[in-house]
Amino acid sequence: MPIIRVEMLTGRTREQKQELAESLTSEMARIAKCTPASVQIVFTEVEREDWAIGGVLTDAKPAAPAS
Amino acid sequence: MPIIRVEMLTGRTREQKQELAESLTSEMARIAKCTPASVQIVFTEVEREDWAIGGVLTDAKPAAPAS
Amino acid sequence: MPIIRVEMLTGRTREQKQELAESLTSEMARIAKCTPASVQIVFTEVEREDWAIGGVLTDAKPAAPAS
Amino acid sequence: MPIIRVEMLTGRTREQKQELAESLTSEMARIAKCTPASVQIVFTEVEREDWAIGGVLTDAKPAAPAS
Amino acid sequence: MPIIRVEMLTGRTREQKQELAESLTSEMARIAKCTPASVQIVFTEVEREDWAIGGVLTDAKPAAPAS
Amino acid sequence: MPIIRVEMLTGRTREQKQELAESLTSEMARIAKCTPASVQIVFTEVEREDWAIGGVLTDAKPAAPAS
Repeated sequence: MPIIRVEMLTGRTREQKQELAESLTSEMARIAKCTPASVQIVFTEVEREDWAIGGVLTDAKPAAPAS
Repeated sequence: MPIIRVEMLTGRTREQKQELAESLTSEMARIAKCTPASVQIVFTEVEREDWAIGGVLTDAKPAAPAS
Repeated sequence: MPIIRVEMLTGRTREQKQELAESLTSEMARIAKCTPASVQIVFTEVEREDWAIGGVLTDAKPAAPAS
Repeated sequence: MPIIRVEMLTGRTREQKQELAESLTSEMARIAKCTPASVQIVFTEVEREDWAIGGVLTDAKPAAPAS
Repeated sequence: MPIIRVEMLTGRTREQKQELAESLTSEMARIAKCTPASVQIVFTEVEREDWAIGGVLTDAKPAAPAS
Repeated sequence: MPIIRVEMLTGRTREQKQELAESLTSEMARIAKCTPASVQIVFTEVEREDWAIGGVLTDAKPAAPAS
């Protein structure tokens, strides 16, 4: 029954989303003691123009190496 | 004042969304005792690639007849 | 698979939530062509102190008869 | 650490979003006593076809001058 | 029509929420060109035990001076 | 920068939340190529009375063994 939402910047591949789905689901099931089948995950990819940190849209920043 | 959010897979028509808007609003108003005008509904259509159940992205499944 | 979230002010009874659950689920299934079993609804009750309209917390208003 | 989400109809420019990001972040920091760097804002632009008020999708209304 | 959600750690007073409501609403109206009356704000206060940064629940950290 | 929200029924311990925070953060960082420090997780525990599946509030069901 758990619902996991993942908001992240655009740019991840379908393969990364599939790997995330598998991994987060199995970790959730293991730790929270639920069945994997009951876990739903919804990914939301956000454009850099729509995400601000510290008051600055993230498309305005020089490419950050790892975020 | 109630806000209803509906997350569902893409593929519903505008007519279905209009019918949902009418129906959910009138049921909400009737049961929760609020005015229909105070009810807002926001639809979010999610791509199959962005929704996982049981650790599997839903675009990886054979077309499910009724979900 | 649809997920419906209902945010509303506190004060509804369990019976109203059960009636909403039944009604919204059956309408969702009928209109969006999904199975009732696939519909999840999460209710969030919000305190008046945590909901503002027009810049005013709703606990500051004289009791509104129907919202 | 605060996360602010802004859902609004589509149609605002990048400049408006940047101005909102700056303003909401500085007001948040000032009033809630946090650092501006800790404030994240995520904008979600919603199509008129996906937002209903009073049971009517907002693309069905004559253009409202100010909402 | 805009909906603003503010998620923040518990501990702010009603006065801070009222001041945030006024300020964020007026800035939203001014910049996004909507009426103040159309802006709704919902505050969600999150317990430190329910918010993790960098994999650590925030109640496990020594009191951070400004977040 | 990713934000992960976990909605689940009440009843998990702080230890489970801490273990989830560590695990989901490290998996997110590994797969999505971001720094662990940039990952935020917000847990929302939902009362059984506020979560319906198939039109039935989950407090109305006989205790499900694994969800």
